[in-house]
Amino acid sequence: MLVVQKFGGSSVANPERIIRVAKRVVEAKRAGDNVIVVVSAMGDTTDDLIAMANQLNVNPSDREMDMLLSTGEQVSVALLAMAIDSMGEKVVSLTGPQAGISTNEVYSKAKIMGVDTERLERELSQDKILVVAGFQGRNPKGDIATLGRGGSDTTAVALAAAVNADVCEIFTDVEGVYTCDPRLVPRAQKLNSISYDEMLELASLGAVVLQPRAVEFAKQHQVKLHVRSSFNKNPGTIVQEVGSMEKEMLVSGVAHDLNVVKMALFDVPDQPGIAQKLFCTLAAQNVNVDMIIQSANRKDVNDISFTIAQDDLAKALQAMEKIKEEIGAKGFTYDSNVAKVSIVGAGMVSNPGVAAAMFEALADAAINIQMISTSEIKVSCIIKQDEAHNAVTSIHNKFDLDGAEEASAAC
Amino acid sequence: MLVVQKFGGSSVANPERIIRVAKRVVEAKRAGDNVIVVVSAMGDTTDDLIAMANQLNVNPSDREMDMLLSTGEQVSVALLAMAIDSMGEKVVSLTGPQAGISTNEVYSKAKIMGVDTERLERELSQDKILVVAGFQGRNPKGDIATLGRGGSDTTAVALAAAVNADVCEIFTDVEGVYTCDPRLVPRAQKLNSISYDEMLELASLGAVVLQPRAVEFAKQHQVKLHVRSSFNKNPGTIVQEVGSMEKEMLVSGVAHDLNVVKMALFDVPDQPGIAQKLFCTLAAQNVNVDMIIQSANRKDVNDISFTIAQDDLAKALQAMEKIKEEIGAKGFTYDSNVAKVSIVGAGMVSNPGVAAAMFEALADAAINIQMISTSEIKVSCIIKQDEAHNAVTSIHNKFDLDGAEEASAAC
Repeated sequence: MLVVQKFGGSSVANPERIIRVAKRVVEAKRAGDNVIVVVSAMGDTTDDLIAMANQLNVNPSDREMDMLLSTGEQVSVALLAMAIDSMGEKVVSLTGPQAGISTNEVYSKAKIMGVDTERLERELSQDKILVVAGFQGRNPKGDIATLGRGGSDTTAVALAAAVNADVCEIFTDVEGVYTCDPRLVPRAQKLNSISYDEMLELASLGAVVLQPRAVEFAKQHQVKLHVRSSFNKNPGTIVQEVGSMEKEMLVSGVAHDLNVVKMALFDVPDQPGIAQKLFCTLAAQNVNVDMIIQSANRKDVNDISFTIAQDDLAKALQAMEKIKEEIGAKGFTYDSNVAKVSIVGAGMVSNPGVAAAMFEALADAAINIQMISTSEIKVSCIIKQDEAHNAVTSIHNKFDLDGAEEASAAC
Repeated sequence: MLVVQKFGGSSVANPERIIRVAKRVVEAKRAGDNVIVVVSAMGDTTDDLIAMANQLNVNPSDREMDMLLSTGEQVSVALLAMAIDSMGEKVVSLTGPQAGISTNEVYSKAKIMGVDTERLERELSQDKILVVAGFQGRNPKGDIATLGRGGSDTTAVALAAAVNADVCEIFTDVEGVYTCDPRLVPRAQKLNSISYDEMLELASLGAVVLQPRAVEFAKQHQVKLHVRSSFNKNPGTIVQEVGSMEKEMLVSGVAHDLNVVKMALFDVPDQPGIAQKLFCTLAAQNVNVDMIIQSANRKDVNDISFTIAQDDLAKALQAMEKIKEEIGAKGFTYDSNVAKVSIVGAGMVSNPGVAAAMFEALADAAINIQMISTSEIKVSCIIKQDEAHNAVTSIHNKFDLDGAEEASAAC
């Protein structure tokens, strides 16, 4: 079997943990698998580097930040390779560019455009364990570009797709994918399997166990994912094409996301092209817009509300000042004190009462809903941030996600 | 003017110092120069990384050490570029490979084989300041290889040669090249200029202000070096082809080196090919041998003594066990408690009494000489380590290097 294993930053935070990861990798190798390991930067390395950068430049360029931050993963791969080598296995570490990962030109949020597997295959054929730096690749300028938040997951999936790995194992500090955040709702149940689409919605909604881009990539290339604990050998959650059994489960999970800012542009002239101008300008600044709601309150003018990630707030505010002028809006507001809670389930599409049940759960907890957005397999609500915990617990109970029947269907 | 400026690790040890370097670079740029800056890793970064590596592998491979250590310079260039950017100048940081520096295959002690100036010239033509990571390049395997101890000097000189820079400025924590180590002999005089050959001998002899390989490279490509203080604007020491005036100076400097181990192989059969076998085996282990003395004590057997750097002791001891067997020597000894003191001067070759005067200086100080080695422009003696300070002072006095007449000739 050819296995890609991905370990996050906390799994390699210090030499003791690096040795533990090395042991796990070596075990897989000795059990007969070919192994490619993808690792992130050690623990707080990235934060430390960012803090240092900010001492020198309040607004460092993305290109230089990528140059700086990519060293974190490079340190990890070298150290992990040394640990594996000391256990007597053949091993070689590779940076993203050395592993053949090419990206587009966008710094700090680069997209993987392709993987040249020549070197990967050559090293694998020499019976080596490959240790690849996550989160990075080479862009068309020959520069190092990073893949943005959680990019290491994407690296692992992209490599698994490129070399036709049998499975891509994502090691985390939890046992797998849960019906809800187990830190928030202790009775949350682990799912044995979940579809790409459900995982995608959960991931997009702030269930941080897997990056949405990585799930998308996996779905696109049909890469089987296995989300499992780095602390034990228990089977975790398999993410793959949905089977019929899972479809019967109405709601497979509840997610919440605190990394949200709600923005609203009000009294926008009711003319064609306004929304296009607004969201194109934000896209040009690399601001990812999530939920969008346009409401016609009065004649001739609209309000447009949308949500973005906290990280993009500074960039969005800059862009909004310009946009406000250009499109003749009266003003705009933003609110960081919000959270998004969501339910996800492939069975939702054929059960119209699901959204209503969620709203009822929120009403039961006396929680006001500020924005609503739905898709075929999810319902998301924006609420006040300090009500997120209550909301998730109430929804989890409402759908009996900790109940015996559903748990058996889910686990 | 096109200037290459090189700053060592202590010059970029923290954000404050990085800002100081950035200011100096920006000043040169604003004065009308095109500037390429070469920097080393911040302060203790390299030592910290080595310590971490040793926790994971008592004998990490050179390849993985290079992967690890090269991150140190990458961090420095990104941070320095950010600092320069914040001062409003256009700037781009480059790793060794990105700067087009290619090396041979030897990890940890790679030699620069060439510089592809395509990117350097393109970025320079866009009026940018270039910040290049010292100490590293890309080897034929596509891996990162480091240039070994003080490799950043070599990077700076190689870049200066490749882009035909007018001068390569080496910034240090001293004012320039001295007749002697000023920390040891307070009356040591700064030299205004010195020839490549003299600098080469001084550098080889442990005067750490410049790496010998860098001086060799500079001599080969006639790169003018300017060794100067990073703390002030005083002119330092120019290293270039020797003029007639300097030749008249008998001895231009006294150097000492504590990083020495004396090894001796005794009762070696007096046969052809013995020395070849010994030194080829050491070379194969990448052990650099410095002084070599073979003495015929008795009929049919010889003693062979030589010196190596402390760093290479472990590798040398391993090799020596094998060599002893193979060439049928009776045994070998080594002594780390030694130092090398040397005098250097282009005028020496035509003045036969110079070596004698040095031996006299040592005799005056009651210092026993263990080994002697001479070249056209230097004389080196191995003595006991704790006598090094006395030796240097005595020699410095003997040649009146702090005297008024010589000082005026020298400075």
